[in-house]
Amino acid sequence: MRIIEKSAFLTDKNNRSSAYHSQTVRTRVAEIISTVKEQGDSSLFTFTEQFDGVKLNELRVNEQEIAEARDVVGEDFIQALQEARRNITAFHESQKQPSWFMGEQNGVFLGQKITPLDRVGVYVPGGKAAYPSTVLMNVIPARLAGVPKISIVTPPQADGKINPYVLVAAYETGVDHIYKVGGAQAIAALAYGTESIAKVNKIVGPGNTYVAQAKKLVYGDVSIDMIAGPSEICVVADETANPQFAAADLLSQAEHDEAASAICITTSEEQGLTIQNEVNEQMNQLDRHDIIEKSLEKNGRIVVCKSLDEALELVNTIAPEHLQLMIKNPYDHLHMIRNAGAIFLGNYSPEALGDYFAGPNHTLPTNGTAAFASPLGVYDFVKKSSVIHYTENALSTASESIITLAEAEGLTAHANAIRVRKA
Amino acid sequence: MRIIEKSAFLTDKNNRSSAYHSQTVRTRVAEIISTVKEQGDSSLFTFTEQFDGVKLNELRVNEQEIAEARDVVGEDFIQALQEARRNITAFHESQKQPSWFMGEQNGVFLGQKITPLDRVGVYVPGGKAAYPSTVLMNVIPARLAGVPKISIVTPPQADGKINPYVLVAAYETGVDHIYKVGGAQAIAALAYGTESIAKVNKIVGPGNTYVAQAKKLVYGDVSIDMIAGPSEICVVADETANPQFAAADLLSQAEHDEAASAICITTSEEQGLTIQNEVNEQMNQLDRHDIIEKSLEKNGRIVVCKSLDEALELVNTIAPEHLQLMIKNPYDHLHMIRNAGAIFLGNYSPEALGDYFAGPNHTLPTNGTAAFASPLGVYDFVKKSSVIHYTENALSTASESIITLAEAEGLTAHANAIRVRKA
Repeated sequence: MRIIEKSAFLTDKNNRSSAYHSQTVRTRVAEIISTVKEQGDSSLFTFTEQFDGVKLNELRVNEQEIAEARDVVGEDFIQALQEARRNITAFHESQKQPSWFMGEQNGVFLGQKITPLDRVGVYVPGGKAAYPSTVLMNVIPARLAGVPKISIVTPPQADGKINPYVLVAAYETGVDHIYKVGGAQAIAALAYGTESIAKVNKIVGPGNTYVAQAKKLVYGDVSIDMIAGPSEICVVADETANPQFAAADLLSQAEHDEAASAICITTSEEQGLTIQNEVNEQMNQLDRHDIIEKSLEKNGRIVVCKSLDEALELVNTIAPEHLQLMIKNPYDHLHMIRNAGAIFLGNYSPEALGDYFAGPNHTLPTNGTAAFASPLGVYDFVKKSSVIHYTENALSTASESIITLAEAEGLTAHANAIRVRKA
Repeated sequence: MRIIEKSAFLTDKNNRSSAYHSQTVRTRVAEIISTVKEQGDSSLFTFTEQFDGVKLNELRVNEQEIAEARDVVGEDFIQALQEARRNITAFHESQKQPSWFMGEQNGVFLGQKITPLDRVGVYVPGGKAAYPSTVLMNVIPARLAGVPKISIVTPPQADGKINPYVLVAAYETGVDHIYKVGGAQAIAALAYGTESIAKVNKIVGPGNTYVAQAKKLVYGDVSIDMIAGPSEICVVADETANPQFAAADLLSQAEHDEAASAICITTSEEQGLTIQNEVNEQMNQLDRHDIIEKSLEKNGRIVVCKSLDEALELVNTIAPEHLQLMIKNPYDHLHMIRNAGAIFLGNYSPEALGDYFAGPNHTLPTNGTAAFASPLGVYDFVKKSSVIHYTENALSTASESIITLAEAEGLTAHANAIRVRKA
């Protein structure tokens, strides 16, 4: 993990890839979407055979498969999952918003009505790894929002089954349907519907570059959570940071995949060197050593800043998905952080705590989008409608001003709609 | 305006255009964006000459131009604008959300920190019409959210100036910069920055198909409000509706442009016929007669339903941008509306009231997207960051569960980040 100067780091960062995907991927994904729109289920079977190497007879997971999964995963896992579910539920309960109204004086009633979405689809990545936490973090807020129908799509394993940890998490959170389909074809099925899979209003959940591009293409016809990029951590460490802990957290981010990004910003060159050594020592003992090494080589950096102010301003420039403030009195500096998905304070609040357990959502804005985007929440699964009521008197009082504004815009039929109501 | 059966209406509706734009437009827009990214300001001057027919020396509007505009618009307009600004401000004040925290017991602190976006760009359409209301509806919520820098982009008129009503509205709402540039090139400039125009975090505001496509393409690199489609109204009229008023409101929607859509759903065939006659009579007296006639021919329909329940279910299927409930006891039926951008109640709450004056935002989800999207609001100009703090004891209590979950996902470096913290 290289130690570099702030200026060199910023030069590198400006060469970051943008949300524009390659033309090749876009064209291929657009073709897949068109095919699913035209051919429905039959194309899903074909694509699954082609991309996942499995010939399925049925897309939907049945109850027997879920029962089998519960036998496989073990009681410890189910208990830990239920504990996490309780914490995630408790945190997201606080995000519920009521409908509200105001101004009922003088014959004016104005408000906003909150309504849950009708149907939501959750993409859960498959392949080598299993992500039960993705199920919890996406399904729980949708449930709390009051969404009546929630479906999961996830690619099948080579044996045609779904990972048992994912199935149990889906069962525990009360998912309505689970479909064995992944990739751009799964996104297309959720966006436009097929014989088996109902069209949804919103698609959430992480995925590879094909999934991300498919979400971008269907965006507008349905809602999506975000275009997810590789996962990132930024650890700000002053001389009070425990270097062993800081190193472990950087390594935990780097194990996600080779594109993951682990940045340490320190105000002490000595601390930087100690963390660098800790990273090298711990890395050798970790299972996913090979991925970690490539990820750190490519995107892992230790940046030395002159002051804490400079370090925190650099954080705002990076707008990291995960930020750990391993500094003295971290609460005192919270106001200086403008751009970060999740902020972990102190030596005992590692990212891994937030990934699984603490309660806040782990679906966070990546790739600098924390400058404008938020963690997934209950608010992502409702929509608002304005409500407006004026009495005859109230409208009469307002009518001249409305007519003036309408005519300034040259919209005289708008003015007419007010005039016909004048006694 | 044709009267049709519900089934025929639904068949037509399913042929609605989707958010997929034509390949030709997409390719052209992608080229414009690349050019602006590479060439900056000089390309903006070139495109403005090419598309708007104006050779500019300066993109930014200066103070003298604003002072001149104030002289042109007249005192009545300024007063009406200020009244609207007060109403819009009062409504949007209610949307402000505080940062919050919970669970500070047992050494656990969890919360969400709300931070305004750093920079926002507002697209204001130009051309023949002037839209000062667009300025109010986009700038006021951004200001209330605390956004420090707000820029407007809007295409210049043939004389190289900006419409004076737009300029005055920008002045009254305290916009920081106004730039004479429109189309896809303006969206590209806001998304990536040029020598004159600073990169923003979010782009809001309506526009033509080029602007909409450009917003879709830059989405992900910056945030956008929505992909706006043509404006729509849906008037539900029972026998208590005033047919003259209902007709005027349908006509006011139809005057926007030929693609605008005015739908009347009635539970009474007699009422449908009366409204049809009223539409024909009033239309002939309106300035924008030609646009209205084409719009109504193409997209204007009166649908007769058997019951109010059936009518309101049809509303949910349409998910209209604007909904007027011109029915007996409209409040009693509000719970049946799931999908609508804004809901206007009774005979004296016409859409035109909401377009300019009442206070709720007029930027609303179009083209059926009210099924998943919301009116623009203060919440669109802030982002949230999760905040997580555990003490050593709190983490120790949770550690076994976290390790179990991390290992179920095969992410052993995550488990390691917890283990190194165990005493």
